Amino acid sequence: MRDSLSPTLPMTVSTLTSAQRASILNLVRRAARAEILPRFRTLEASDIDHKTSRQDVVTEADRAAERMIARGLLTLFPNALIIGEENVALHPEVLDGIPEAELAFTIDPVDGTWNYAHGLATFGVIVSALRFGVPVFGLIYDPLMDDVVIGETGGPAELVTPKRRARRTLKVSGGGPVEELQGYAPFYMLPADKQAQFGALMPRFERVGSLRCSAHEMRMLAQGHVDFVLSGRLTPWDHAAGALLCQCAGGHVAMLDGSAYNAANREGYLLCASDPATWGRIRDTLGFLLESD
Amino acid sequence: MRDSLSPTLPMTVSTLTSAQRASILNLVRRAARAEILPRFRTLEASDIDHKTSRQDVVTEADRAAERMIARGLLTLFPNALIIGEENVALHPEVLDGIPEAELAFTIDPVDGTWNYAHGLATFGVIVSALRFGVPVFGLIYDPLMDDVVIGETGGPAELVTPKRRARRTLKVSGGGPVEELQGYAPFYMLPADKQAQFGALMPRFERVGSLRCSAHEMRMLAQGHVDFVLSGRLTPWDHAAGALLCQCAGGHVAMLDGSAYNAANREGYLLCASDPATWGRIRDTLGFLLESD
Repeated sequence: MRDSLSPTLPMTVSTLTSAQRASILNLVRRAARAEILPRFRTLEASDIDHKTSRQDVVTEADRAAERMIARGLLTLFPNALIIGEENVALHPEVLDGIPEAELAFTIDPVDGTWNYAHGLATFGVIVSALRFGVPVFGLIYDPLMDDVVIGETGGPAELVTPKRRARRTLKVSGGGPVEELQGYAPFYMLPADKQAQFGALMPRFERVGSLRCSAHEMRMLAQGHVDFVLSGRLTPWDHAAGALLCQCAGGHVAMLDGSAYNAANREGYLLCASDPATWGRIRDTLGFLLESD
Repeated sequence: MRDSLSPTLPMTVSTLTSAQRASILNLVRRAARAEILPRFRTLEASDIDHKTSRQDVVTEADRAAERMIARGLLTLFPNALIIGEENVALHPEVLDGIPEAELAFTIDPVDGTWNYAHGLATFGVIVSALRFGVPVFGLIYDPLMDDVVIGETGGPAELVTPKRRARRTLKVSGGGPVEELQGYAPFYMLPADKQAQFGALMPRFERVGSLRCSAHEMRMLAQGHVDFVLSGRLTPWDHAAGALLCQCAGGHVAMLDGSAYNAANREGYLLCASDPATWGRIRDTLGFLLESD
């Protein structure tokens, strides 16, 4: 690891060595094979626990995969701060360490747990590395297909299929006017008073939907298959890797109010889009989300 | 095959023998292995053709899988009418034969083609058998996981994992009041003048979304993971099997105007829900879809 990287210049040197990146990916693949895949479509209802609501679920796959990945990361990086979704549910104060951590890793062991727990294949594993809350490395792994979208600051976003040793550089879409845009937005995570308003303007877009899975929403954006992803209820394990990968693929990333994204952000909305002009058109359309009633 | 089955009594005898059902499932599995799986996440943009819009896509996987399944079905049932999605795109008059066909098969070789073509795992193969347009057999196969939801009139809906020889009987959810319902609805297939109205009442449900894939929407309903599926732009290959499987799993199926569903229906909306009371509450909420402006 390097000690001094100017945050104002694109980083063309790596925070992680290529051997470290490979080790992280292997760790994720092993956790998926050991803890996630065997439980897919074999869970009983009694294996699914609820956190804040019946939409917010957790399974033993989440817990066991996170433990395995967290242990592995600490072996590789003994001084890193580890921010795992399930650990934070028990110890929320861990989040307070992000802004001061020279190196932190976030882990979403099963992103899209509701899908996973109900047998839908749209789930993934997300890991990011942060420097003082700024994402510098990210990967979004798909256990079912054993492929990963991976990148780090200043480099490309790549879709890598480890078993086939195939690798493809990703590029966001060309964007466009609002009526031609496809994207994802977290309708049911909006405040109650904003939902009907949002619903009424959905027809202005070509398509707005939700995969209930940040991992695949961000992968779709980085591949250019959709034009934007709006995220609310920000958590570093859900959004840091995707925000970085969107940038690596050429996209424009900022908070909806125009400020810079930092993984320590908990309030507001993150808008990732194909390019600054498209980003601006979406912000103009969705600006009502920033107004307080 | 039997010649006379009273449409007013539950059919407790089979239209197909168990050997015929097994042959159909094997045919679908072979087509998926040969034509669908090898192309998943390996298609180039040039492999994706557009039909009516850029949301309505077709790939060589659809065409080749349909040809293989159609040929196999004709070998098994030389006198059956074959209704394949891609063939009907070229020869729409085939649909006119449904009401008079004593035995017809519908084929959706890749349901959820937009997802499939863009690397999302939410796609499936749907086959149904119809008697004079009434679904009597249906299967929804998931190529990635090699499992199938299958059933026929009067019997249960079962989730079968052929390789593990595992089999589980499915049951729809317990339904409930509108604010606790989760379901799927085809927002962007509604007439333009209905979309904003629909969007504004989405907050009344616990969750309304879309998987862009009838196959998995209907599987989720039959498994009790969601409470309803509303379908528009009816096509027999998209909806006949799912409507039957919902009924087999204990659900209530009817057109939104209360009339009986028949696979020959092209107009109106099909509403599949957990039970008649839940069905009625959804119909009351969505009744505006039936009003002409």
